[in-house]
Amino acid sequence: MTNEFVPPKVWTMEQENGGQWASINRPDSGSRLEKVLPVGANPIQLHSLATPNGQKVTIMLEELLALGITEAEYDAYLINIGESDQFSSGFVAINPNSKIPALSDNSGTKAVRVFESGAILVYLADKFGHFLPKDFAERTETLNWLFWLQGSAPYLGGGFGHFYAYAPEKFEYPINRFAMETKRQLDVLDKQLANNTYISGDEYTIADMAIWPWYGNLVLGNLYDAAEFLDVESYPNLMRWAKELEHRVGVKRGRIVNRTWGEEWEQLRERHSAADIDAVLSKEPK
Amino acid sequence: MTNEFVPPKVWTMEQENGGQWASINRPDSGSRLEKVLPVGANPIQLHSLATPNGQKVTIMLEELLALGITEAEYDAYLINIGESDQFSSGFVAINPNSKIPALSDNSGTKAVRVFESGAILVYLADKFGHFLPKDFAERTETLNWLFWLQGSAPYLGGGFGHFYAYAPEKFEYPINRFAMETKRQLDVLDKQLANNTYISGDEYTIADMAIWPWYGNLVLGNLYDAAEFLDVESYPNLMRWAKELEHRVGVKRGRIVNRTWGEEWEQLRERHSAADIDAVLSKEPK
Repeated sequence: MTNEFVPPKVWTMEQENGGQWASINRPDSGSRLEKVLPVGANPIQLHSLATPNGQKVTIMLEELLALGITEAEYDAYLINIGESDQFSSGFVAINPNSKIPALSDNSGTKAVRVFESGAILVYLADKFGHFLPKDFAERTETLNWLFWLQGSAPYLGGGFGHFYAYAPEKFEYPINRFAMETKRQLDVLDKQLANNTYISGDEYTIADMAIWPWYGNLVLGNLYDAAEFLDVESYPNLMRWAKELEHRVGVKRGRIVNRTWGEEWEQLRERHSAADIDAVLSKEPK
Repeated sequence: MTNEFVPPKVWTMEQENGGQWASINRPDSGSRLEKVLPVGANPIQLHSLATPNGQKVTIMLEELLALGITEAEYDAYLINIGESDQFSSGFVAINPNSKIPALSDNSGTKAVRVFESGAILVYLADKFGHFLPKDFAERTETLNWLFWLQGSAPYLGGGFGHFYAYAPEKFEYPINRFAMETKRQLDVLDKQLANNTYISGDEYTIADMAIWPWYGNLVLGNLYDAAEFLDVESYPNLMRWAKELEHRVGVKRGRIVNRTWGEEWEQLRERHSAADIDAVLSKEPK
């Protein structure tokens, strides 16, 4: 990368791009192979992977189940993005954007597709009546922060994470650009949590479930190995909240679903019942 | 930028970063000056700028007013982000993230703050009962695409737009990375609009209002001067939709509010009544 690069008049894909993810990146969309999705016995069919966006939804489902809402029982099938599972015709039918997570609600007479982790959180909250306040002003503040996350995390994931962890070289300018923005975002959250127990007030909501998998994992050292680089200890309120949520039953259970890396007790490839999670968590050293 | 860059153990701001926007970027958040926001006579108080995120909301408000909903009357005050207006204490109080647009709904006994353009669209749609389908499955499909936009546009704006138009140098790798992703997104929309009149089906919704200011403006040549580079003519369904929406009264009116660049008939610094828009649009050459 030098000063001399002159963009062509019309961009074309001259070579693969994306470092660790280069082989799956393309400038077009749609299915690359005909393949139907598996279907389990539960009302809700989730197709996902335990990245932060995937964790949002499995945490929400486990939080609902922890309340005793059996209608939230789900089958969680693995979408291995490194193996291009997200480009199967079956997956594209429920998410034309080919990104995890995507969900099919088969409980009614006609299946409903839900894609984008933020949309899934709102869907489940509205369907089951939990974790999104009923009062219109409080609901609004929760949605303010949910949308904040959806528009901010791309700078953390597609920006900072890509250039700090995955790009083929350590490019200085993008690392500085996205580190600065990530630290600004951490400071926004830290200030908000200085005066609030949870992200949008006194109540634990889908805003917390959306933000924890990204910024909670980040400050806990679970993302990009960047805790020292970003000096996460300088955000004490955020750290307090991240640690508190880490111990919630819903978070402990949800974060391991569709996970294929980490410790043995953190890895659950597919989830079809509570017992699947229990069996994996029982391996955790005391 | 060379292969030799080694990130420090702990990131610190060594120099300004951001090319054209470097002077306002910082790794922290919060207000930088004490200043209250102006307050007008209308129920809704908007503080914004006619970037794509700003246009979403002014288009929505003008669409509501075009339906005769007078409760959607609004005062739109300019937030000049180049002059750091977004860091005033008044603005930070309604959006701690210091990004436009932000809104205060003063119609009730207690003002409600709404920030993040996606959250504002949902708020206004739910408050007034328009542009978000009532049927739960149809509502879900609209929210799928609204959330798609909120998570995708950062790759267009903060990724492609930044590196193609604003960064201090033409860095090859990030331009290729974000051009590829932008073209993939354009293809997702083009395929969706091959079979649907509007983004989420037969009905014009807040998903269209969210997506048009970014991807509509882009293919119409109004963003980053990148239409040729991205070969936008290769997305004919998206182009059909972009041109159709461009002629809607709500879009024509909304897109010029809080705009301080372009032709004389496109620039309206502040909006307090319909007459303000009428006066500017009347200057358009026939």
